Amino acid sequence: MKPVLYDLCGANPEQRFSPYCWRTIYALAHKGVDVEIRPTPFTKIKDIAPDAGKTVPILSDNGRIICDSVAIANYLEEAYADRPSLYGGEGGRAACRFIESFVAGALMPILASLVVKDVHDVLAPADQAYFRESREKRFGRSLEDVQAGREARVADLAKALKPLELTLASQPFVGGESPLYSDYILFAALQWPRVVSDMAILEEGTPVHAWFERMLDLHGGLGRQVATGQSAKAA
Amino acid sequence: MKPVLYDLCGANPEQRFSPYCWRTIYALAHKGVDVEIRPTPFTKIKDIAPDAGKTVPILSDNGRIICDSVAIANYLEEAYADRPSLYGGEGGRAACRFIESFVAGALMPILASLVVKDVHDVLAPADQAYFRESREKRFGRSLEDVQAGREARVADLAKALKPLELTLASQPFVGGESPLYSDYILFAALQWPRVVSDMAILEEGTPVHAWFERMLDLHGGLGRQVATGQSAKAA
Repeated sequence: MKPVLYDLCGANPEQRFSPYCWRTIYALAHKGVDVEIRPTPFTKIKDIAPDAGKTVPILSDNGRIICDSVAIANYLEEAYADRPSLYGGEGGRAACRFIESFVAGALMPILASLVVKDVHDVLAPADQAYFRESREKRFGRSLEDVQAGREARVADLAKALKPLELTLASQPFVGGESPLYSDYILFAALQWPRVVSDMAILEEGTPVHAWFERMLDLHGGLGRQVATGQSAKAA
Repeated sequence: MKPVLYDLCGANPEQRFSPYCWRTIYALAHKGVDVEIRPTPFTKIKDIAPDAGKTVPILSDNGRIICDSVAIANYLEEAYADRPSLYGGEGGRAACRFIESFVAGALMPILASLVVKDVHDVLAPADQAYFRESREKRFGRSLEDVQAGREARVADLAKALKPLELTLASQPFVGGESPLYSDYILFAALQWPRVVSDMAILEEGTPVHAWFERMLDLHGGLGRQVATGQSAKAA
């Protein structure tokens, strides 16, 4: 049986936007693992498996259930050790924790302030209620307030992406000459706003924009084959 | 003949503060390479070797002159391939470019705004003139203006260090269970203010402070064996 990946989705099951799931989707493609993706709305995650945890991605492979993107990447690296490495060695694996932490600490707060209401708007009604309640509790403000005035924060994102921009001055990917899991972590964070929003957050003609386009082209254009934008919810 | 490392220094040759040189000093220790350090003030760098470039670190080893911290680390990894790796594989090497870029893009501007005038003050008079002219041109302001109001920016540094803080929640070093060149790059950036300034920039009791103390302890307390602070210039 094919491995199964439980991925997050909006009202339209083809609008899959999770920044944690997109890392995993690219990691599976990197390993050449053919997978069945099961789009799952927020409020259905609890039904996936009794002990599976409350967040996706969740991978079911060879009778094992693996939760959390970090655990899944480590599982894939070991279970498919004969395929191309996700990390390029133990130093690369360790450095991925820094890159994840960079995404969590430096990028996600800005990205959330750009598109959190757009995320809400692509969800089905039951998921909208869950998302609004849990996120407004986290932010201490309404989703509308978090996203208000977002145009001014596109410049903050460009500034926060400076480390990526400088990296790309010396090599085409964070992984070097070709992409590694480090690239997938960063790509997935930026795929999140791309999938849910109509707002352009990366300036065309910049090194980061060019890298993002290369990332969308990888693995047969995997990242492009997904419903995007505010109109996709009605599809 | 022992390899020679040309390192930057203040009026006191034992006050060596360069964030680019400290990476290299730790990389040499990591490789177990015994080196002679030649403290060199800013205005004497041009006399080191005719084609050596205008910045330190400069390493002279086995009749070769290697300039630039990146080139030196790559040289050491190859020339001393039988010693412990600086990168932990090619993925780790590639990720070091991201970590350098993080230091250059996210940390150094804040660190400079905390201690650039303190750097000036530990230099000999001829170097002070060079440093003031070149840095004020770069910043478009006086050194005093750049550093003014710095107490308020200690919080900006803590925020910028969030990716490191989050990384240390899952492993003791950026390199994993033990330090790699990635740790040395980050350490060296923070060693710079420690050596020139009396200002405490890391809050005690935080994970980053604890990691920095571990870094100072490495390789026989290498990072502690240097003159520090504004009073050291008179030593």
